[in-house]
Amino acid sequence: MVTTDKPEYKVVGTRPIRPDGADKVTGRAEYGGDYHAANLLHGAVLRSPHAHARIVSIDTSKAAALDGVKSVITNADFPQPSDEVVDMGEGAATSARWLLDNVLASDKALYQGHAVAAVAATDAHIAEDAIDLIEVEYEVLEPVLDVIEAMDENAPLLHDFLRTQEVGGMFDPPGELGDTATNVAKHARFEAGDLDAGFAEADIIIEREFRTSMAHQGYIEPHNGSAFYNRDGHLTVWTSTQGSFGIREMCATLMDMPISSVTCVPMEIGGGFGGKIPVYLEPLAALMSKQTGRPVKLIMTRQAVLEATGPTSGTALRAKIGAKNDGTLVAADVWMAFEAGGYPGSPFTAGMMCALAPYEIPNAVVEGYDVVVNKPKVSAYRAPGAPQAEFAVESVIDELAERLEMDPMDLRSMNASTEGSRRVDGAVFGVIGNEEVMDVVKNSDHYRSELQGENRGRGVAIGFWFNVGFESSAYANVNPDGTVSLVLGSVDIGGTRASLSMQMAETLGIPGDDVKPHVVDTDSIGFTGVTGGSRTTFAGGWACHEAAMDIRTQMEERAAQIWEVDRDSVAYGDDGVIRGSGDDQSFTFAELAAQLPLTGGLIQGQADVSPMESGPAFAGHIVDVEVDPETGKVDVLRYTAVQDVGTAVHPSYVEGQMQGGVAQGVGMALTEEYFYSDDGTMLNSSLLDYRMPTALDLPMIDAIIVEVPNPGSPYGVRGVGEVPIVPPLAAVANAVSAALGQRMTTLPLTPRQILEETVLEE
Amino acid sequence: MVTTDKPEYKVVGTRPIRPDGADKVTGRAEYGGDYHAANLLHGAVLRSPHAHARIVSIDTSKAAALDGVKSVITNADFPQPSDEVVDMGEGAATSARWLLDNVLASDKALYQGHAVAAVAATDAHIAEDAIDLIEVEYEVLEPVLDVIEAMDENAPLLHDFLRTQEVGGMFDPPGELGDTATNVAKHARFEAGDLDAGFAEADIIIEREFRTSMAHQGYIEPHNGSAFYNRDGHLTVWTSTQGSFGIREMCATLMDMPISSVTCVPMEIGGGFGGKIPVYLEPLAALMSKQTGRPVKLIMTRQAVLEATGPTSGTALRAKIGAKNDGTLVAADVWMAFEAGGYPGSPFTAGMMCALAPYEIPNAVVEGYDVVVNKPKVSAYRAPGAPQAEFAVESVIDELAERLEMDPMDLRSMNASTEGSRRVDGAVFGVIGNEEVMDVVKNSDHYRSELQGENRGRGVAIGFWFNVGFESSAYANVNPDGTVSLVLGSVDIGGTRASLSMQMAETLGIPGDDVKPHVVDTDSIGFTGVTGGSRTTFAGGWACHEAAMDIRTQMEERAAQIWEVDRDSVAYGDDGVIRGSGDDQSFTFAELAAQLPLTGGLIQGQADVSPMESGPAFAGHIVDVEVDPETGKVDVLRYTAVQDVGTAVHPSYVEGQMQGGVAQGVGMALTEEYFYSDDGTMLNSSLLDYRMPTALDLPMIDAIIVEVPNPGSPYGVRGVGEVPIVPPLAAVANAVSAALGQRMTTLPLTPRQILEETVLEE
Repeated sequence: MVTTDKPEYKVVGTRPIRPDGADKVTGRAEYGGDYHAANLLHGAVLRSPHAHARIVSIDTSKAAALDGVKSVITNADFPQPSDEVVDMGEGAATSARWLLDNVLASDKALYQGHAVAAVAATDAHIAEDAIDLIEVEYEVLEPVLDVIEAMDENAPLLHDFLRTQEVGGMFDPPGELGDTATNVAKHARFEAGDLDAGFAEADIIIEREFRTSMAHQGYIEPHNGSAFYNRDGHLTVWTSTQGSFGIREMCATLMDMPISSVTCVPMEIGGGFGGKIPVYLEPLAALMSKQTGRPVKLIMTRQAVLEATGPTSGTALRAKIGAKNDGTLVAADVWMAFEAGGYPGSPFTAGMMCALAPYEIPNAVVEGYDVVVNKPKVSAYRAPGAPQAEFAVESVIDELAERLEMDPMDLRSMNASTEGSRRVDGAVFGVIGNEEVMDVVKNSDHYRSELQGENRGRGVAIGFWFNVGFESSAYANVNPDGTVSLVLGSVDIGGTRASLSMQMAETLGIPGDDVKPHVVDTDSIGFTGVTGGSRTTFAGGWACHEAAMDIRTQMEERAAQIWEVDRDSVAYGDDGVIRGSGDDQSFTFAELAAQLPLTGGLIQGQADVSPMESGPAFAGHIVDVEVDPETGKVDVLRYTAVQDVGTAVHPSYVEGQMQGGVAQGVGMALTEEYFYSDDGTMLNSSLLDYRMPTALDLPMIDAIIVEVPNPGSPYGVRGVGEVPIVPPLAAVANAVSAALGQRMTTLPLTPRQILEETVLEE
Repeated sequence: MVTTDKPEYKVVGTRPIRPDGADKVTGRAEYGGDYHAANLLHGAVLRSPHAHARIVSIDTSKAAALDGVKSVITNADFPQPSDEVVDMGEGAATSARWLLDNVLASDKALYQGHAVAAVAATDAHIAEDAIDLIEVEYEVLEPVLDVIEAMDENAPLLHDFLRTQEVGGMFDPPGELGDTATNVAKHARFEAGDLDAGFAEADIIIEREFRTSMAHQGYIEPHNGSAFYNRDGHLTVWTSTQGSFGIREMCATLMDMPISSVTCVPMEIGGGFGGKIPVYLEPLAALMSKQTGRPVKLIMTRQAVLEATGPTSGTALRAKIGAKNDGTLVAADVWMAFEAGGYPGSPFTAGMMCALAPYEIPNAVVEGYDVVVNKPKVSAYRAPGAPQAEFAVESVIDELAERLEMDPMDLRSMNASTEGSRRVDGAVFGVIGNEEVMDVVKNSDHYRSELQGENRGRGVAIGFWFNVGFESSAYANVNPDGTVSLVLGSVDIGGTRASLSMQMAETLGIPGDDVKPHVVDTDSIGFTGVTGGSRTTFAGGWACHEAAMDIRTQMEERAAQIWEVDRDSVAYGDDGVIRGSGDDQSFTFAELAAQLPLTGGLIQGQADVSPMESGPAFAGHIVDVEVDPETGKVDVLRYTAVQDVGTAVHPSYVEGQMQGGVAQGVGMALTEEYFYSDDGTMLNSSLLDYRMPTALDLPMIDAIIVEVPNPGSPYGVRGVGEVPIVPPLAAVANAVSAALGQRMTTLPLTPRQILEETVLEE
């Protein structure tokens, strides 16, 4: 761990056992799939076999007549929404119309696997049988699967009414609307300096095109959704989600109910990575429960998860970067088109914000497109958009270093963005750890080691993610035994309970174990955004700190009352001791807690915070690979991930986030892809065929934590979950390119891809 | 409804549908018996067939060897506690040792039905079979069942070590300890004025002795208790209880755990009336779960509920009251002995506090005894102690009126305690509605009507209950749709959710339905006392009011921020409108709520209050009866209950409390009794034989609400649940005495009792 100036903490930075550990290792933790209720109905979903088809008619009569079937629904059974915008959490939004149409297709099926109808029956087998009895007449249309082809003016159109919307940054209001029907849903352009003048200054310019494939988050737990619509008009939804308040919002919108008539109970979650923010099954369960008066539960098959939930975009990218002979980067022109899937809404603007962020480049243009194609509607996936965008840029930077015969890290270091640097989207950096990360990469044992052997190559890459903040609440109760019960709305992914309760304990000056975290439903805690966007430990931790400060204030007041002294003469120390001015005026937290019941009652603390930025994060990765020239198979020999985490609240979980991000990024680089037939049928929709790296495919990943505290957080915390997935695509591609002596530009670098490219080049 | 000065309220005083109504009428509400978990073990309890026996040995080996049995426990398997005092909630406390011994007998079984051992097995039938395989060697001892007999110095002793403890009032610290072994656990004496001088002034003195029987609360739902002891040392208990925090405390004590390692999840409750405050099954489930690593569930049979949970005391009472010829009461000497059951702890001091409270009597002594007998350990039962104590006093008052040839209400009125009156226990009344209640009784249609017909009689009686306060918490979140989610720790009995959320809505100036109440577990809300003692609508409502005031303050601050004006220029009106000084500065609650998310985040309010007194309550009842001279059966012809409720928050629920109290009091007066064989076996331990009044046994009970607002509550609320059970014993006995022309002093007035007494007298 490499740390710049950081205060001494007692709890923050330690590695306690996670509060939910026993439940999770003994199988006692209740996931969405564990939901059960009396008279539960089981649902199933009919999905389109066609990637692009007009739905002429749906006849549900035979299904409805099957014994045991209690409800059969199609899109038409939902209240038909307006185009109002629905906040899904983490800044992601969509129109209610599109959200509903993705839950159940309306006039068209837009991807193979698109849900078309749903059934609820007394058992799951009957529901599956009923699905087969639904008769759908399709008018099959030509699909368009490739982002570049979809942008062609002669391409088949997914939506007749779609016009290109000019947009600004991720958080800017939308601009003008185009006047011709198109698959290009959105366009954005960031510009800084004078691009032509910049390239005119350059001694060397490299321009390349790149492609990446749609890739899935690959969480172990399939999507689930259960709901009970009570006779009094109240809807309760049980689901494994990253954001219970987002589920409440989306279900309320699609059911046309006020949010206060909807409760979301967040069950434990078996991985999300951004993919468990939208609704899929929950509205189906809700509507079928309303129709039947019984609770309804749906669980996806693995095939449905892959075919019909939200992976990340496949992309087409172009990066053109100019440098002087001394390595100074003078101009960059980056172009990117993101697959949105069947409905608009890819993370292309986030990719645009991140593409060039590690560097000071005075003259730059970044242009991006959001393009609908006949594939599943994409969702967030860990630093959404950044891995693809930075893959292009970091590949070209790598090639520039090669051509300039410079050390690739030296080239990066000399152009590194620092405090005060302005990004192409206009944002200006505060305190960031970009240079520190680059220094640690350069001085690492891995980077300083020599890579020997045939067919081997080393790659490096830098990654950036801006991180987000948004609203989080915390509510805490002091117990008379000196502990604190902490109530949270943040679903626990990767250690949320620990990382938030540790920050509260630090502020209270009590042992970490003495704060007992509890994740509750949307009725029982203040609004809390999704666990995602690298926001939770930052914003949630801040809320816990503020709630702890609220407790400190009240404990000072109580001590003053007990001692019968002036309130201002009492101070709560960071060591958890409450002191008055007299020698005998001193309470430990536990001592005062024990006195609370009989001196005016126990104390509650609360806070609601809404920070807008959570301290940007940088990562630098080094990877050594060996390519089998016979088969094209790539082995990862060694991997080191360096990352500025601000302050590592729980270093083990930070390391886990870094290692997990690497594993997923390596998957996107080497093996993971959505493989479609020409007619748009996904051919690898199982975890045998959709090839994610396993523990056997990867070496132990060295995680080197760099701590450049975020001045915008009480404990210097930066989000850590997103950025580690950003560098691997470029780092691995750079390493493979080095091994092959040939620039690889299309991911994943499967044996097939490598053999095709190397054979073609020969 | 008769109301003195009361502000105009918008929500308080209305009769909305209860928030939990749909759940409860559709069977969706989850009671303790509905608890289920994977790998659940089912428990059963072996109970003593003897009322008094030394336990020589317990051989559990055969039971443990039965296939499917996972745990067999006895008292010895628990950590052996000290004599530390455990707070059970509502001011009730016991020693940990006695609490445990009542849960599972240690050296002696002290009543028939006393739990001796428990089993957990893979199904309930195996558990029952295993119970039969446990071999207990008893040394059967002579039982003592009668409170007077138990006080005899030659009576069999339940506890060799028991000495008489001198105690003060219910909330005073204990005094001296006697030096001889006895069944008299406690003794208290209140004294005011000069008793002898008082009686010397009297023109007429009446003295009579009375008896009442042990009686059960008779809730529909049997006791249940489920628990899971997790591998990380955390215990979760699911149970139908009146007080989740009390369950947490008691389970933590008996399991020798810190309270923060115990979570109590309060399930819905099917009636408690004071009987669902102690633990019975919960510690058994907890220990057997710890031993097996699996969740364990126990449910009582009805027989066990009657034989082994906590009914109210049978009593022996003596009241001697002197009056002048003009009706002035000059002296009263009241003596009472309460059965505690197998362990000390009857509500005799509460009875002593209430006995004379309706009257100004300058010279008075009240003396009371807590006596252990070989019957189940008593628990709280609605105004615990008061119905018995006031039965004695109100019978003698009635006889005085008869002898003085005064109207019985006139005699009461002229001696009524009022604001400033000092009770014999020293408490001084604030604003009370005693005289108002008496006036309403006298002016009621019922009282002014003439009772005609043979064998008929009319009785009146006044009742008093002091009510309690104690600690309650509230936590509330403003939703952007203008509603408020209210989080409560008070189990809902008889409309708690409604009565608390209505008070919050009133303070916020929003519709009652816009506050959405949720009852949560002990981890998720601040400390909240039991739902009992007529404290909940008072103390919980006050907490809701304070939490609403917290919200009001924050909404003023937010509006000031939005308008960019001085904070002090903004005021939240009682109409729910937030106004600034400018004409255009006005937000309804819903308007401002909608703006919260984008102006700094949503708002939470919280409060923790600990009032010590909740505004005493008085009730006056009138009853007409007819006695069948052939069979001795008493029919209740007409019943009117008048009560000062302070402010009726939800009048329907107040009326329900009044009617329910009457029904239970009439049961104690006429039919309900613990009927034992000489050897101490309860002979009527089923609801066929333990005879509670049904709807067919009672006329419609007229409830007349009197509102003399309690100045100690934001909305003038007084507790209403307890006092309506106080007058019926005396009122019915007075009516029957009038019908028979003979004073009846032993309850219940069953046909057998009436025939015996009337035959004996003839």
